[in-house]
Amino acid sequence: MADLEAQIPALAAEVAKAGDTVKALKEAKASKAEIDAAVKELKRAKTAMDAITKAIAAQNANPFDANRDGLESLCKRRFFYRPAFEIYGGVAGFFTYGPPGCAVKNNLISLWRRHFVIEEGLFEIEDTNIMPHNVLKASGHVDRFNDFMVKDLKDEAAFFRADKLLEESMENIIKDPTATPEQKEEATKVAAQADGYSQTELGDILKKYNIKSPLTGNDLSDPYPFNLMFPTPIGPTGDLQGYLRPETAQGIFLNFKYCLEQNGGQMPFGMAQVGKAFRNEIAPRGGLIRQREFTQCEIEFFCKPVINEDGSIVTGGKGGKPHPKFDLVKDEVLTLFPSPQQLAAQSTIDMTVGEAVEKGIIANESLGYMVARTQSFLLRAGIKRKYLRFRQHLPTEMAHYACDCWDAEIMFSHGWVESVGVADRSAFDLNAHSTATGQELVAIEKLAKPIKKMVVSTKKVAAGLGKEFKADAKKVVEYFDGLSDSEKLALKAECKEAGSKTVEIDGKSFELLPKHTDFDEREETQHTVSYTPSVIEPSFGIDRILYAIFEHSYYEREDEAEEKVEEPKKDKKDKKKDAQKDQMERSVLNFPPEIAPVKCALLPLDMRVTRDARYEDMCRSLASSLSVMGISSRRDDSGVAIGRRYARGDELGIPFAITFDFETFEDKSITVRERDSCVQVRVPFDEAPQILSRLCDAQMSWDECRAQFPEQKQTASDKVGMKA
Amino acid sequence: MADLEAQIPALAAEVAKAGDTVKALKEAKASKAEIDAAVKELKRAKTAMDAITKAIAAQNANPFDANRDGLESLCKRRFFYRPAFEIYGGVAGFFTYGPPGCAVKNNLISLWRRHFVIEEGLFEIEDTNIMPHNVLKASGHVDRFNDFMVKDLKDEAAFFRADKLLEESMENIIKDPTATPEQKEEATKVAAQADGYSQTELGDILKKYNIKSPLTGNDLSDPYPFNLMFPTPIGPTGDLQGYLRPETAQGIFLNFKYCLEQNGGQMPFGMAQVGKAFRNEIAPRGGLIRQREFTQCEIEFFCKPVINEDGSIVTGGKGGKPHPKFDLVKDEVLTLFPSPQQLAAQSTIDMTVGEAVEKGIIANESLGYMVARTQSFLLRAGIKRKYLRFRQHLPTEMAHYACDCWDAEIMFSHGWVESVGVADRSAFDLNAHSTATGQELVAIEKLAKPIKKMVVSTKKVAAGLGKEFKADAKKVVEYFDGLSDSEKLALKAECKEAGSKTVEIDGKSFELLPKHTDFDEREETQHTVSYTPSVIEPSFGIDRILYAIFEHSYYEREDEAEEKVEEPKKDKKDKKKDAQKDQMERSVLNFPPEIAPVKCALLPLDMRVTRDARYEDMCRSLASSLSVMGISSRRDDSGVAIGRRYARGDELGIPFAITFDFETFEDKSITVRERDSCVQVRVPFDEAPQILSRLCDAQMSWDECRAQFPEQKQTASDKVGMKA
Repeated sequence: MADLEAQIPALAAEVAKAGDTVKALKEAKASKAEIDAAVKELKRAKTAMDAITKAIAAQNANPFDANRDGLESLCKRRFFYRPAFEIYGGVAGFFTYGPPGCAVKNNLISLWRRHFVIEEGLFEIEDTNIMPHNVLKASGHVDRFNDFMVKDLKDEAAFFRADKLLEESMENIIKDPTATPEQKEEATKVAAQADGYSQTELGDILKKYNIKSPLTGNDLSDPYPFNLMFPTPIGPTGDLQGYLRPETAQGIFLNFKYCLEQNGGQMPFGMAQVGKAFRNEIAPRGGLIRQREFTQCEIEFFCKPVINEDGSIVTGGKGGKPHPKFDLVKDEVLTLFPSPQQLAAQSTIDMTVGEAVEKGIIANESLGYMVARTQSFLLRAGIKRKYLRFRQHLPTEMAHYACDCWDAEIMFSHGWVESVGVADRSAFDLNAHSTATGQELVAIEKLAKPIKKMVVSTKKVAAGLGKEFKADAKKVVEYFDGLSDSEKLALKAECKEAGSKTVEIDGKSFELLPKHTDFDEREETQHTVSYTPSVIEPSFGIDRILYAIFEHSYYEREDEAEEKVEEPKKDKKDKKKDAQKDQMERSVLNFPPEIAPVKCALLPLDMRVTRDARYEDMCRSLASSLSVMGISSRRDDSGVAIGRRYARGDELGIPFAITFDFETFEDKSITVRERDSCVQVRVPFDEAPQILSRLCDAQMSWDECRAQFPEQKQTASDKVGMKA
Repeated sequence: MADLEAQIPALAAEVAKAGDTVKALKEAKASKAEIDAAVKELKRAKTAMDAITKAIAAQNANPFDANRDGLESLCKRRFFYRPAFEIYGGVAGFFTYGPPGCAVKNNLISLWRRHFVIEEGLFEIEDTNIMPHNVLKASGHVDRFNDFMVKDLKDEAAFFRADKLLEESMENIIKDPTATPEQKEEATKVAAQADGYSQTELGDILKKYNIKSPLTGNDLSDPYPFNLMFPTPIGPTGDLQGYLRPETAQGIFLNFKYCLEQNGGQMPFGMAQVGKAFRNEIAPRGGLIRQREFTQCEIEFFCKPVINEDGSIVTGGKGGKPHPKFDLVKDEVLTLFPSPQQLAAQSTIDMTVGEAVEKGIIANESLGYMVARTQSFLLRAGIKRKYLRFRQHLPTEMAHYACDCWDAEIMFSHGWVESVGVADRSAFDLNAHSTATGQELVAIEKLAKPIKKMVVSTKKVAAGLGKEFKADAKKVVEYFDGLSDSEKLALKAECKEAGSKTVEIDGKSFELLPKHTDFDEREETQHTVSYTPSVIEPSFGIDRILYAIFEHSYYEREDEAEEKVEEPKKDKKDKKKDAQKDQMERSVLNFPPEIAPVKCALLPLDMRVTRDARYEDMCRSLASSLSVMGISSRRDDSGVAIGRRYARGDELGIPFAITFDFETFEDKSITVRERDSCVQVRVPFDEAPQILSRLCDAQMSWDECRAQFPEQKQTASDKVGMKA
């Protein structure tokens, strides 16, 4: 792009110069021939300039925009997904996955489980969708999981999400030709921060810009919080308030203790949960990427901190939160967009994870490890490296629980979209649930060598309190135990000095004498140290990733000639109809085999093959051998031409097609066609399941397969089709 | 059992006779020796009688009762599952699956997908958990998905599920020694029908038995319906009422139309959905088998009826609802408990599916096919054939939508529990949604040969109505079109006879003259016939099946000696601790490999192996080769004795264990141990992944594996352990 832009000044000068020449010649009343030549030169310069401008615009354009309509039409036509309850008119923010969409989603989740749960040895749990009030109160969601709304003051039914309304107003200013550059710059800043403002800030700024209801022009209410959780009562009395979980993470924290036990108390370890999360969005738009219920795959990796010889614990800094397998990923290159680069309007940086952690750009090894593993998962699932970056949250946009966060952003026709968040949540959640329940949610490490420590003990005096305070003695002991060592010493000193001190405990006064506070200081040996672990949380929005994969996988074939050759003659009369269908038959989704909805199409070359008695048996036995190896297949015995049936499979992203032809019955061989190259090879029938299995597991590449088996010429295949 | 019971009369006679002898001898003042001998004989007879009685009781006892405590303790100890939110005290009816439970559940669902979605070629979709009011109003759930409750009239907080309360009262009568046989018989009948009574019947019968609050003895309210759906508002105004779906089936019906389209309009075909369903149970008890949220796997198989030459459609009778693959299952033997046998208190019948359909015991092929496939799935998943039966619903217990239903009931410690329902729902749901939405939810079949039919057409007269009725003409035509052919002819005759007839349409009077109703009868040719398909619905309660598998898989080893030999000496000091742990170390879950939580344990023989530099590399590379083949493995490098580590895996149901010992480094071989036989074979390291894969896919049995590779003697292994 820079190259193209560099040409502009010279071209602009040429245009200006040619313009001046024309003008000068006209003023000088030069000959028509001379003027015409100058005009021709001006036109040439302008055309060159236009071409460059267009090329720059094309390069700046979102590369996925052009295909969006084709893809959406495909998704609907083949029922990848649709609005839910469509026969009832639909409800915003709810979608139904049809058979291929559902299969790709399930495969994506299986891949995720393989990549993370199996390869990282995570403890996967399944917690509930409905959670009681006290859990989500403690986690902060009851109080803080809000969006701000404003109401039309004269129309009760009209309401808006305040930050979105503000963003729209700012965009209007940015587009307004009468606005000054300063106004535009401020509007850009305000729009970027819109979802980070507090309730008061948002109210002030809406007033400052005098923003009205976009529907009626009426005044708006002050912003008020709307909790995004779906409430539902539990049990027949409705006394127990429940909510649908807004994230799967909380179920993990609730079970940390039990999984630590399963791990024999060993740190670090990771837990995972796959399931639905629910957010009652105010006005969801954006299709699959903003749904009111959606699938999350979340990991909480509980870090083991560095423990010093003196028993002190280090969780911060680049040495904190080390990861045992960091060395395995340290050379992976990431495209990073750190917070300082964003604030300085600079661009992304490519660097290895190792370097990023070394330089403190990514805060620690565990965070870096998870960012790298997230990238390798996304690439494996079919996301294009070029359109993937990791953006650090700005200090203003961090969630209430996070101390650092990197979003995996994927570029597709919606722009850069956050699809995975990798957050360092510190120990926020475990602390919150521990406080709410009184349960200890800690890990315990044995110290390398025991440490000795002075402590102020209440043990000795506690024994003597019963005589004096009777039933209240326990309260007094509890009061003492609630004091820190230095407070105990201060109390002891005070009593000694003043002769006594009166304290109030639970609304009752107690006169403490020196003998009651004669605490003794003694040395204790500490063998272990306990701590609340920090967590690194990679949180995957599966539906967003899925939609991104659709966009990254979609293309339209430029030339179908090769395929067309195969259509038997009988279809000639349908040629006109074919032409109309052409466009939709050029669509391909090039999913990696692991996530393709079906791995293999099983196709008879034509109806004469279908009618052969041997076909049915061979096809069934092949389908069953494939199924045993976990390879799903789908038959298409319809009478449609083979080329069109290949196209049907390409559209669903089926990577391989096996064709039964007349040679199949002669020498027990079938052909295997690969979706993207359209190349076919002929392989022995009995070896087909093993070959398919190796192709699908990426144990054999298509090129290796081509090298091993004879290529089946399309014309030859066609000839076979014409034989009978 | 019959054999044992047959011995009772003779034994009872012996006891009586011996008793009489003793009595007679005593009365006759016989010698002590004589009396002693007679008493001895009496005692012998009584002992024999006791033994038989006990044996009968043991045979009648639930075979899973004895292991229930052991299993529950295992499930908690290894975190298969726990009450949800346990650190907050829990909420009834909510459970969390821990790592092994979650893995077995996921594997069970994968197996289900393979058995049904892939092998039956079903269209799987993913619809939403939250559904709007109008959908569930149409399906009948808003009005009819109720349980009846009663309230304590003096204590607002005390309420009970009316049918359960009635059942408990009846059970008290059955147990009451003072109740007459007639009272007990009636109580048994009432208890059996308790969940089938209407609101009024239930009120009457509670009054008849004068049933009070079991907590306070206070009077109870009349029964009132409580809807079991969890309500939740959608969107920020709360105007749109939503519910959490009570079953996954409805999402399938909503998308029937789109999947029929994907199938090219071809019937029959099946759809499936896997997901959560939610029921706000009044007072859930019974652990995993009665949860407020649970996982369903549901299939709707849309049947193609028999279409006669005259275009009439046959869905009923044994010829109706044929299944294209019925022949493949017709010889499978099922244990059936048909409704007549239940009503006549007879026992179950074993017969083939083919015979059951032939005799009309199972209503049609599609229902029979699904029952047979349900059985093969359950057996594949680890359910024992002996403890599985199919019970037909009694006419009184059928759901509002069903016209026939067979429950797969599995015996476990809770008794016989419904775990799968296979229902013929007729066309109830498609009709309901079609009526509610005005959408045609039908399939269309081309007739074998077109049929000609006389129809009464309004076309001719409609053209002339405009002049007369002006703007109202359309209304009149609509009125005509709403009449059946015979009604049209009657109207025509009436007008002709009386000269005119006045009809009221939308509150307005119209005088119809003979010319307005001069409909003509004409022959039309019909090429297709459309119909609303009936469905067969197999509905799987995954959590119940899972719990049944736990019970069917659990056993305790009788002799651990073989394993114990291997423990290295250093553990001697722990012997006492070991003894306490013995009991828990004998537990085994013999899951089929397909559903086992982890397929393979990777174990170094002892710490000396662990410390060998070669171990880490070999173990990592093996784990990675296994993972590529989809085989999950788990390392256990803890310093614990090898026998105890085997036991840890057995408890989780891990079918195979690979042990690295010193020979591993010498000749690149490892041992593979099978969980149930405890036998080990030595196999080449490089072949291990392939062997494991074949063992896990049931392509090779353990016996075949033993035949192929040398057995590793436990003592030899022990010696290796002692070497260094």
